[in-house]
Amino acid sequence: MQITNDKNQLNSDPITFGKTNPMKNPVFDRRSIRKYTSQQIEKEQLDLLVGAAMFAPSAGNQQPWQFVIVDKRDVLDELILSGPYTSALKTAQAAIIVCADMERVTREGFWIQDCSMAGHNIMLEAYNLGLGSVWIGCYPREDRMANVARTLRLPSFAIPLTIIAIGYPDETKERPDRIDPARIHYNSW
Amino acid sequence: MQITNDKNQLNSDPITFGKTNPMKNPVFDRRSIRKYTSQQIEKEQLDLLVGAAMFAPSAGNQQPWQFVIVDKRDVLDELILSGPYTSALKTAQAAIIVCADMERVTREGFWIQDCSMAGHNIMLEAYNLGLGSVWIGCYPREDRMANVARTLRLPSFAIPLTIIAIGYPDETKERPDRIDPARIHYNSW
Repeated sequence: MQITNDKNQLNSDPITFGKTNPMKNPVFDRRSIRKYTSQQIEKEQLDLLVGAAMFAPSAGNQQPWQFVIVDKRDVLDELILSGPYTSALKTAQAAIIVCADMERVTREGFWIQDCSMAGHNIMLEAYNLGLGSVWIGCYPREDRMANVARTLRLPSFAIPLTIIAIGYPDETKERPDRIDPARIHYNSW
Repeated sequence: MQITNDKNQLNSDPITFGKTNPMKNPVFDRRSIRKYTSQQIEKEQLDLLVGAAMFAPSAGNQQPWQFVIVDKRDVLDELILSGPYTSALKTAQAAIIVCADMERVTREGFWIQDCSMAGHNIMLEAYNLGLGSVWIGCYPREDRMANVARTLRLPSFAIPLTIIAIGYPDETKERPDRIDPARIHYNSW
């Protein structure tokens, strides 16, 4: 596949999964979905999403993460009040809060990277399961973190990085035009 | 699928891609690969990996990233000297350095999350293409960042987050036992 800025060319030349499968590829096709249907999500699927997170790489394999699955409406409603940009939680059937576990950090300074990749795995696997999701940033905003910690009764060693809202999509989004060759440098800036 | 700590059960019950495809799922099956064959990587594939990165989500869609593709042996050799844990670069055929572009940051404090997901997309798509990769942490270690910036002549507004080493795998790794139910909490800690 040629890298191109031509959206039509990119879309007409589907990026294949595993070289042989022309089905959609979550790496390119997952989008932020903020509107969901009323269809509930099975507990097994939510567990699977957290399982996906646990397969992310981490610095020195420290796996510095903890997860809170929220599927009760009253808790979701309280999380809406935790900060701005939470409107996706109004129709979300569930949310997964990815937290750092600071007692498990052995490589100081890398937990944000580790937990971000874990959270991204949740969103990619959600796409694989036909679910939509969106990343609602929490860390490093102190007010949002304090609100989430209070709602979920987090211990002091748990830092909430993100609220990932999840549900069956009630909106569709095309693959956007994102390729910018000006951001690619070869062997030197 | 049941979440389980039983490795054999997990492996004998393949997590399906898109529900219908029993092939391997990069979210669960990608591993850190540090030994590579001498097979070269086509430039088009390296461009595609950076393209995958550009489809990551970001705070307010700020897309605060830049990428340096390194495929020259002398530059890879110089990067080996940039810090510890760089041994994968000895046999790597290429590396992609994911940088933050601080001039594009519109949502302060979220660029590490954004660029980590972009880098993770590179590693997942590498797996899709049959390539191995490993994340070599750079930020927030000041010495490593300074060394990488000097080698690649980065401008002052570019912060190197990670060196991702890439090549065709010369080692194989099984899916490990990573599921830890003790890390999962429901509706409250």
